[in-house]
Amino acid sequence: MVKVELICVGNEILIGKTLNTNAHWLAKRITSLGLKVSRITTVADDLKEISSAIKEALARNPRFIITTGGLGPTFDDKTIEGIAKALCLELKVDGKALKMVEDKYKQYVKEGKMEKAELTPHRVKMATLPVGAEPLPNPVGTAPGVLIDHEGVTIIALPGVPSEMKAIFENSVIPILRRAAGKAVFYEASLEVLGMVESEIAPIVDEVMHDNPYVYIKSHPKGEERISRIELHFSTTTEDTETAKKRVGRAVIQISEMIKKKGGKIRPIKTAE
Amino acid sequence: MVKVELICVGNEILIGKTLNTNAHWLAKRITSLGLKVSRITTVADDLKEISSAIKEALARNPRFIITTGGLGPTFDDKTIEGIAKALCLELKVDGKALKMVEDKYKQYVKEGKMEKAELTPHRVKMATLPVGAEPLPNPVGTAPGVLIDHEGVTIIALPGVPSEMKAIFENSVIPILRRAAGKAVFYEASLEVLGMVESEIAPIVDEVMHDNPYVYIKSHPKGEERISRIELHFSTTTEDTETAKKRVGRAVIQISEMIKKKGGKIRPIKTAE
Repeated sequence: MVKVELICVGNEILIGKTLNTNAHWLAKRITSLGLKVSRITTVADDLKEISSAIKEALARNPRFIITTGGLGPTFDDKTIEGIAKALCLELKVDGKALKMVEDKYKQYVKEGKMEKAELTPHRVKMATLPVGAEPLPNPVGTAPGVLIDHEGVTIIALPGVPSEMKAIFENSVIPILRRAAGKAVFYEASLEVLGMVESEIAPIVDEVMHDNPYVYIKSHPKGEERISRIELHFSTTTEDTETAKKRVGRAVIQISEMIKKKGGKIRPIKTAE
Repeated sequence: MVKVELICVGNEILIGKTLNTNAHWLAKRITSLGLKVSRITTVADDLKEISSAIKEALARNPRFIITTGGLGPTFDDKTIEGIAKALCLELKVDGKALKMVEDKYKQYVKEGKMEKAELTPHRVKMATLPVGAEPLPNPVGTAPGVLIDHEGVTIIALPGVPSEMKAIFENSVIPILRRAAGKAVFYEASLEVLGMVESEIAPIVDEVMHDNPYVYIKSHPKGEERISRIELHFSTTTEDTETAKKRVGRAVIQISEMIKKKGGKIRPIKTAE
């Protein structure tokens, strides 16, 4: 499977001000595209921290590194500088990116949202990219996304504002990930078990996973006391949906029969989008 | 400031099934206690991944490493084994932990929640700890938390079920963190700026942070277009609340005056709990 690492940049996450919904949204989308998120790292708005996190991720050989946050105009937007430092690349004003930024401010002036569209240093900063990088258009904000191909790893920097992150991902990143994923398909299903505790279900899960080596089964206690309700989550990644459904279906049937024999009750769970 | 790293273990986070509210809750609580969360890492339920993440965190010299997830009875609950591997410690059944686990199941039998309290291998697993570790009582579940002191770093493993994680944190971890934090106090305040874009506010933030070196100011665009509403978040960590309030207050007054001069509007934000 094609490995993706996420690196989220932002003090607001580390102080518990902001819940990291960006990582959750990206992880879900990337998994559903058939790729594997192998790690999520959150670091501070600090040049050394960002650069170290990028270097450490590179050493683990993912196919993609996707960052969120730190692309804006303020002093603490340091992601691009951190990536450049990690890759030993020079930073230069990128003509294509500068035009994207300038056009945005001109549009804001036209819409009466501000008075002057001049390219202040804080605005030029958003178009200052590592040499060789490609800016990705931001349909709902000013800072472009950034794509860098580096020795077989594609590094993609997205903004931290969720609407901007999502828009750039949908428009510019999905086609790239889809190509890399090839035919891989992720398929999942869930069951709820009532009347058994997790430690009673554990040996059953062991046996069913042994008999169904391509299906991953994970139990999630849902009640207060690890006792009232256990969700069993089945997942597999394969080359076509039919095979995936068959594999998961076989495991679901086997586990259901074993649980009923032990006196447990089962009900299906509808997966929420 | 006293550094804390969080390591969250769980495939469900990496596939985007579960939003990592544990990291958010812990980050907020730890910050409010006056310590600094320096990094949050999420890894898979994989022995090598967990052990690598622990070793990498140790190399960054935090005072505490707090893990969540992977303490239960199933085959993929591997956090304790991963920590033992990282620290080269042997695993042994811990008498105190075994009594905690056994008492829980006896209680469940008494309450009619299950029939037999016998110590199956999957239950004994939850009491199998690195030599020298201390189990932390779990008031709302079966798997105890685990505390290990290792060469000046305290490693604390908490369950992934939020109610269990929170209960062990409140009962057993807060007193330890409070002692380590000493007199440190974290203080924060927020303002909302209307009628200015982030790149117009950026140079003002630069100047006010220069004049108030102990206050960290971060802008958070709240509208769709980085334009409608900008939250300015002020924070400082110091030894007493009075000094913290004075420092933040001074920065808030200075920035408010500068923003009004530039034609922006300001309104206070009530910090949600």
